[in-house]
Amino acid sequence: MDFEGKLLAAAEKNRSLLCIGLDPYPELMPVKDVFLFNRRIIEATCDLVCAYKLNLGFYEALGPSGWRALKKTLSAIPGEIPAIGDGKRGDIGVASRAYARALFEELGFDAATVNPYMGFDSVAPFLDYPSRGIFLLCRTSNPGAADFQPFIFEKVALKAREWNRCGNVGLVVGATLPQDIKYLRGLCPEMWFLIPGVGAQGGELGPAVDYGRNARGDGIIINVSRAVLYASKGKDFAVRAREVALRLRDEINRLRNKAGRYPPA
Amino acid sequence: MDFEGKLLAAAEKNRSLLCIGLDPYPELMPVKDVFLFNRRIIEATCDLVCAYKLNLGFYEALGPSGWRALKKTLSAIPGEIPAIGDGKRGDIGVASRAYARALFEELGFDAATVNPYMGFDSVAPFLDYPSRGIFLLCRTSNPGAADFQPFIFEKVALKAREWNRCGNVGLVVGATLPQDIKYLRGLCPEMWFLIPGVGAQGGELGPAVDYGRNARGDGIIINVSRAVLYASKGKDFAVRAREVALRLRDEINRLRNKAGRYPPA
Repeated sequence: MDFEGKLLAAAEKNRSLLCIGLDPYPELMPVKDVFLFNRRIIEATCDLVCAYKLNLGFYEALGPSGWRALKKTLSAIPGEIPAIGDGKRGDIGVASRAYARALFEELGFDAATVNPYMGFDSVAPFLDYPSRGIFLLCRTSNPGAADFQPFIFEKVALKAREWNRCGNVGLVVGATLPQDIKYLRGLCPEMWFLIPGVGAQGGELGPAVDYGRNARGDGIIINVSRAVLYASKGKDFAVRAREVALRLRDEINRLRNKAGRYPPA
Repeated sequence: MDFEGKLLAAAEKNRSLLCIGLDPYPELMPVKDVFLFNRRIIEATCDLVCAYKLNLGFYEALGPSGWRALKKTLSAIPGEIPAIGDGKRGDIGVASRAYARALFEELGFDAATVNPYMGFDSVAPFLDYPSRGIFLLCRTSNPGAADFQPFIFEKVALKAREWNRCGNVGLVVGATLPQDIKYLRGLCPEMWFLIPGVGAQGGELGPAVDYGRNARGDGIIINVSRAVLYASKGKDFAVRAREVALRLRDEINRLRNKAGRYPPA
């Protein structure tokens, strides 16, 4: 099954457009072993999500043991839930092929985030995997996004549309910029948006879901990490993570199904 | 010693602005073990270079054994030769800090390439290491560079200048675009340029060195990978790599010291 099929099946089965970002912050984790922590989170939430996202930076920082924890975590994610490799890689030809191979073959991710700065030939090796999802960084949720993205994020979206021959290209669009979500949804009515930035980064769920949802009421993957993972620093962390995930899932569903749109912000 | 000091010392000692990119292509390598191959290349060339550059994609593709080969290769590079970690990472706050820590602490690189797409807060964690070098992708040597970079590479250079409080920020500028090298040297007279794209990618050494050199006749790190590493597929690969590196080093020196400039292309 291709990425979109797997994503839609998980979204339907779990009635969820929530993605949990499995980002291990050693100083926040109530369990010191990254894999054991992740496994508890996965066990507690895998019926509530449409995907998990793993930011490779957190694992790379831990060296070879981080690499092992990443692989073990991937094997602990139920086979029917897609895993997104958030590496934001971007390089030319051969190195980019190496990254695509590492993410899709060595690690077996169902989808990956890709940095578009170097253009088509840096994205092409990922596009060579038509059954995997590719999310191009477009309009990110951080303050520094204002430095360069305003000049090119629209161009990135238009190129993404052009490159999307197999229906597997999506965009990363931060929840902190609802007007840009709205604009990009207009440009790319069919594309999946991976939307980080809700919660710790200050993005609001309401406008993100309302402007981001497509005509069918989906097309968005709302990623939340810290608010779920570190809902409690105590032994009850998995139970509390589930509570927060459940609340987020249901709130996203309420918003995606409601009639009418937010007024222009 | 900081990165620039180490770089200048190596450049002076070896009379070289040549950097060798240790990119293992398994299908081209006459020795199958990546570390043993790299060690032979390093032993044969370490008196001819100002730096080595390791593109992380090649190692990541090999999984845990690639990670080990990367670390062993780093330990085989003589202490006085700087090692550049070419990961082109770029992420927000915490993940970016993780990448900076992985590159500078876990792996111990003297410098790193960084993708500027996400702006200041994605670069800041690297800037927090004032003794290490940071090369921002600016104008790259690949065909896809034409997709988005023409709209922002000048802005990247101007921001790099602004962020360069400690004199440790440089730019990646491809040898394939000599007019842009010239323009960027005008904008950033003091900054180090890491210049890939000579050789296999079609960039010419002459204009790259001539337009790239600063008033002092340096300020450029000319990276060559395949032309050196795979000069021979036979048992003589290390000897042949040395011959090519020697020729490149001397040609770069001839060009950097010559009077007059290329006419405008």
